[in-house]
Amino acid sequence: MEFIKKPMDIETRSMEIIAPHLAGMGLDEKAVKVYSRIIHAAGDVEYAPLIRMSDDAIDKAMASLRSGCDIYTDVEMVRTGINKRKLASFGGQVHCLIADPSVAETAKKQGITRSMAAMRQFGRSLDGSIIAIGNAPTALFEVLRLVEEEGIRPSCIVGIPVGFVGAADSKQALAENGRIPYITVKGTKGGSPIAAAAVNAMMYLINNDRG
Amino acid sequence: MEFIKKPMDIETRSMEIIAPHLAGMGLDEKAVKVYSRIIHAAGDVEYAPLIRMSDDAIDKAMASLRSGCDIYTDVEMVRTGINKRKLASFGGQVHCLIADPSVAETAKKQGITRSMAAMRQFGRSLDGSIIAIGNAPTALFEVLRLVEEEGIRPSCIVGIPVGFVGAADSKQALAENGRIPYITVKGTKGGSPIAAAAVNAMMYLINNDRG
Repeated sequence: MEFIKKPMDIETRSMEIIAPHLAGMGLDEKAVKVYSRIIHAAGDVEYAPLIRMSDDAIDKAMASLRSGCDIYTDVEMVRTGINKRKLASFGGQVHCLIADPSVAETAKKQGITRSMAAMRQFGRSLDGSIIAIGNAPTALFEVLRLVEEEGIRPSCIVGIPVGFVGAADSKQALAENGRIPYITVKGTKGGSPIAAAAVNAMMYLINNDRG
Repeated sequence: MEFIKKPMDIETRSMEIIAPHLAGMGLDEKAVKVYSRIIHAAGDVEYAPLIRMSDDAIDKAMASLRSGCDIYTDVEMVRTGINKRKLASFGGQVHCLIADPSVAETAKKQGITRSMAAMRQFGRSLDGSIIAIGNAPTALFEVLRLVEEEGIRPSCIVGIPVGFVGAADSKQALAENGRIPYITVKGTKGGSPIAAAAVNAMMYLINNDRG
């Protein structure tokens, strides 16, 4: 069987295939990179018209990443998908509490999801961070409550939970939050690789800046 | 904000929303569960007409899982997404070599992807196993070569790599392999949560059998 086997060739060819689907959308160069990595991660060009971000999202996230901010995720799959070596090169770490026993206990006691309890437990450590949500709408709703009611100020929220119960609503609430820079995807589609791809794209942009 | 916060309620409601999209497809009860979890993981009902599986795939995979078979994945995100506690309850483990230094060395030396080198290194331990591929078309092509040229006989291949370079071709080759039971998704869409969801669905079916 003949097929492309070299990682760099695969990536280059993939970005070439995606490019025409972004033409005419008026995206700047940085946004094109973030859109492309999201579409690449989903294998789905129909993400192009669904991606939503605030004008300042990429610049704010890049500035925070560059200065060594940490990333907080709702689930382990997002943590796994984030390029931790690259993040460490800026001085940052990824945190996830979904598997923490005390979080499980809180969730059970309060009848809420574990990822929601995890976000609540992060609390003020979310200030200045990037939050990456790829699975749980409840985690995103909780983050928005922390912003609104408890004055938490993350640098950027990459909120791309997936599914048919709450995901679309939570993402719409994120897009309308009016305070915190955000990247999201309209509707039910999303997931951990999508959230991780958006974060990784911004880290790779920093590298390009340096190069 | 009002939203459903109880994990079981979210899951039940989600499956109710997906059900009408599978009506009239002639799926048996087990296939409905696998389809539903895939669609749930992607937040995308357009997966319904794209899912392909051999008639024996679910039964073969369930029999192997029940008897304690191991699962081999192309990338860490698939490993992360698989319910390892459930798998351990049957006696199985998940293996992934993508981060193995010797695999990285082989890949570099031979100019192939790491996930392809990882599959090659698994070799005969793939016999009787379930292979779950959620990222790399090259890994799936390599598995099909191992089957064809080296007589490897996994119990079932869940091959759902994602992307625009090789993914659709590799999945079509899987669907036409004629030897090994398979579950896949036609076209460019797929990903780690999708592959993990298919595997998890089959483990949960075994639990239901026992319940």
